[in-house]
Amino acid sequence: MASASFDKKALEEGAAFGPRFSDDGLIVCVTVDDRTGDVLMLAHMNRPALDETLTTGVMHYWSRSRAALWRKGDTSGQVQRLVELRVDCDQDALLARVVVAGDGGACHTGRRSCFYRRVTTAGGSARLVAV
Amino acid sequence: MASASFDKKALEEGAAFGPRFSDDGLIVCVTVDDRTGDVLMLAHMNRPALDETLTTGVMHYWSRSRAALWRKGDTSGQVQRLVELRVDCDQDALLARVVVAGDGGACHTGRRSCFYRRVTTAGGSARLVAV
Repeated sequence: MASASFDKKALEEGAAFGPRFSDDGLIVCVTVDDRTGDVLMLAHMNRPALDETLTTGVMHYWSRSRAALWRKGDTSGQVQRLVELRVDCDQDALLARVVVAGDGGACHTGRRSCFYRRVTTAGGSARLVAV
Repeated sequence: MASASFDKKALEEGAAFGPRFSDDGLIVCVTVDDRTGDVLMLAHMNRPALDETLTTGVMHYWSRSRAALWRKGDTSGQVQRLVELRVDCDQDALLARVVVAGDGGACHTGRRSCFYRRVTTAGGSARLVAV
């Protein structure tokens, strides 16, 4: 974790936004549907993705698999308009509330949310079941 | 990212739970208040933390700052009982719904949620304001 540019008190209680990108230059972002409150997805941003998001009001992420800046919805139409961006206590995680265009979904599998399976431990071993 | 033990289709559509820990042995977990749906915090788990969580039904994380297994609430009383654990499409993120004991909070600063500040760009520079 890159060291913060200010102390713990400023980090937690101050008005300065100092997102703490990890050693790979990324910060994690939880994205929530503003209408339903459902968690849609979890993705990462690098500094340019965060800056583009704040400047344009449209969610941009860093695709780790494609190693590219990713304006969500460019191919799917599932553009995410930023309603509110929050940061957590130690400024190493972001929480975005968004309104989704297109079909309203966020997951490349076609589901609205990427979290479409729950873990069950019935029978002793962990398995997945659809929700 | 450690390679998954099965292919993309099995990863996304199968019933096998194969959480993909990153190279540092961690997987990210978003934790949501089961009663309100609010995002409380974001933390990481290693394999033992995940196993303990599933076995005991109480949230365990890996504290990166203390480099230790962390049963949430051991000192604060803010024990988190697991209601439901979900995994995302590519199985590199977890979503936990929990009921919080003690005072119902999750953040070490005393707030219920770690996400108590929003980013504002009014005036051209990004600043934080309390929500």
